[in-house]
Amino acid sequence: MLKYQQIANEIETYIKEHELQQSDKLPVLETLMTQFEASKSTITKSLDLLEKKGVVYQVRGSGIFVRRHKRKGYISLFSNQGFAKELEGYHLTSEAIELEVRKPTEEVAHNLNIGLDDDIYYVKRVRYINGQTLCLEESFYNKSIVTYLNKEIISDSIFNYISEGLGLKIGFSDLYLRADKLEEEEAKYLGLQKGDPKIYVESIFHLTNGQPFDFSKISYNYEQSHFLIQGTSHFL
Amino acid sequence: MLKYQQIANEIETYIKEHELQQSDKLPVLETLMTQFEASKSTITKSLDLLEKKGVVYQVRGSGIFVRRHKRKGYISLFSNQGFAKELEGYHLTSEAIELEVRKPTEEVAHNLNIGLDDDIYYVKRVRYINGQTLCLEESFYNKSIVTYLNKEIISDSIFNYISEGLGLKIGFSDLYLRADKLEEEEAKYLGLQKGDPKIYVESIFHLTNGQPFDFSKISYNYEQSHFLIQGTSHFL
Repeated sequence: MLKYQQIANEIETYIKEHELQQSDKLPVLETLMTQFEASKSTITKSLDLLEKKGVVYQVRGSGIFVRRHKRKGYISLFSNQGFAKELEGYHLTSEAIELEVRKPTEEVAHNLNIGLDDDIYYVKRVRYINGQTLCLEESFYNKSIVTYLNKEIISDSIFNYISEGLGLKIGFSDLYLRADKLEEEEAKYLGLQKGDPKIYVESIFHLTNGQPFDFSKISYNYEQSHFLIQGTSHFL
Repeated sequence: MLKYQQIANEIETYIKEHELQQSDKLPVLETLMTQFEASKSTITKSLDLLEKKGVVYQVRGSGIFVRRHKRKGYISLFSNQGFAKELEGYHLTSEAIELEVRKPTEEVAHNLNIGLDDDIYYVKRVRYINGQTLCLEESFYNKSIVTYLNKEIISDSIFNYISEGLGLKIGFSDLYLRADKLEEEEAKYLGLQKGDPKIYVESIFHLTNGQPFDFSKISYNYEQSHFLIQGTSHFL
């Protein structure tokens, strides 16, 4: 972790521990520079990172303020760290249903930007939050990037394994979200009725170099899935 | 509009007009500096803005690349410009159902960070996309910020009016999203059946100075509402 990331983490921890509220003002740049023994450009990068993460907002000529509207139990859809990291404080478990190496369909090949002859890992899981079903997940990993998976890994956090086990850098993601009615098989896995609402998300995760490595189709239990989406201003 | 915003717009238009695809490479910084007769710091700001908007991604030491997974008909939830701007190419209309000045409930006062004696504008609308119902929307505006609304304004784009008519600077937003079943009244307005799925969003929009001015509760027609959510890396 680079110094500005470390400082950003420390500022975020400080905000949490001191229960700072929305629009509470942070110390000025000069104070933060002294406190963290860091240059102006390092502190600026830390603050830009926290702004991207929706932790603070900066008002030109006025200062840096805490941004905290987060409601308990809402999952941030901005997170690239996987749900396990996002849902600290919750008990998240995964039940592996299927794991195999196969060839991609045209849809999967298109979304992963690979050929029909390339290998993928197919992973099917049910994920639970505090013992309740959270979602049914089908994921397709480009095997030339995510070179190895096993039942033990997919029963835990795959993203944690990808970044820490394989040392890959997870970058940006595209999520396509809509609501629909549950199919019979999905309802069975989620413990709901056929025709009940679902949030259906298709997502593509990329490495920082732009390569897509994970295409997923996820059906969420509507009773358990509350999402927070933070928009940052494009005009700062 | 500042120079870096203008350049960002021109680069975005160029990408659209030339139908550049995901991972196509943009010219190097020096070329863009010459082309737009701008300094390195201006071009860097333009590219950072485009990265925030999910238009490009930057790979350190390698260049700037086009990011375009957008599927037709998906609405970006990142946009702070209101749907009218976002859905260019679609025909978006609004039917005003109710408009009045009233006192806020505790919930509304809390979310707008105002007192129970302050005035708000209450707006209820049905919005249509290409003649189909898109959503039923109840909005609560802090009247000391959004000082005037009438039926004509709310039948058009309120956000357009707020930024261009009132000259306010729209900043960041928090969206809370979940799925649920339609109530009878909602179903009637949306032309669906009671119990059908809905995407339900509560959103709080702030000015760039951090003041919340709009708290909205929106129920979306699941057949018409497809959302795109772009996550940027926190680790660039």
